[in-house]
Amino acid sequence: MTRPAHIENVQRHVVLVCPEVHWNTGNIGRTCLGVNAHLHLIEPLGFSLSEKEVKRAGLDYWHKVILTVWSSFQAFSAHIKPKKEEVVLFTKSGEKPFWDMPSRERMFLIFGSETRGLPESVITCYPDASYHIPSNLEIRSLNLSTAVGIALYESLRKIRPVHAWLE
Amino acid sequence: MTRPAHIENVQRHVVLVCPEVHWNTGNIGRTCLGVNAHLHLIEPLGFSLSEKEVKRAGLDYWHKVILTVWSSFQAFSAHIKPKKEEVVLFTKSGEKPFWDMPSRERMFLIFGSETRGLPESVITCYPDASYHIPSNLEIRSLNLSTAVGIALYESLRKIRPVHAWLE
Repeated sequence: MTRPAHIENVQRHVVLVCPEVHWNTGNIGRTCLGVNAHLHLIEPLGFSLSEKEVKRAGLDYWHKVILTVWSSFQAFSAHIKPKKEEVVLFTKSGEKPFWDMPSRERMFLIFGSETRGLPESVITCYPDASYHIPSNLEIRSLNLSTAVGIALYESLRKIRPVHAWLE
Repeated sequence: MTRPAHIENVQRHVVLVCPEVHWNTGNIGRTCLGVNAHLHLIEPLGFSLSEKEVKRAGLDYWHKVILTVWSSFQAFSAHIKPKKEEVVLFTKSGEKPFWDMPSRERMFLIFGSETRGLPESVITCYPDASYHIPSNLEIRSLNLSTAVGIALYESLRKIRPVHAWLE
């Protein structure tokens, strides 16, 4: 059995490309905060991040989230320079189930917008890195914040971070 | 490698004990629908399930969710009679990480309310069945609908259901 690791030593990045729904992004921030993951938002966003708007949306924890907002995906990738093997994309048409994603020390989990998914320009940058979360045809997709939670925790499975509330 | 199974052949039940937030329950319904899981709600609920209220909350897919509402946990368990080994409880103080939950053909994943968690009376019914989803101390807990998504998909990992959108 793998030895549990402190969640603080793991590098997880969640990248939302043009998210549209304030509440989803807020909830994803909460999930990221809980596992020390860094949240990257790629503009344009479908909502405002002004103090007033964040307050109105009733987002818990938002001020504590490790957050960077980028003007474009190119700006993000030029600055952060993720290695190809550190990137996993989530799309409905992703070839492999998310359970097969690799486990790396540093990982970038990239998600598209609620209604439009990931742009082709991002998908073609990372061939062989597309994953799906299986579902039937009853739903168009999972809610974005649910999908991020599922994928982010799967990316931590082999690391088995400790639950700080039990220490 | 395990052979992928059709999601239709798997029996998954999500049980929410006294949920408080309409939107969370609605989003959990969407997740359940996507993997053919049955949703059980234990009263009292913190919201109304009337047509008007469901419409007002803007819940997608709600009318398609396989749903049973029970007047109490006792009513649920007396009628459904889940076997002890089919039950997994999720609480912040759960002893084992959710990655260690068993995989059964039929499973009942039981969650407490957003603010109060699971009642002790339910926890004591199922000793050794309590699991946590690891986090640091920055958040009190994950959002309920995120936690359900994470746990439900983990319960399907060994079954590896196919992604109907790729067939």
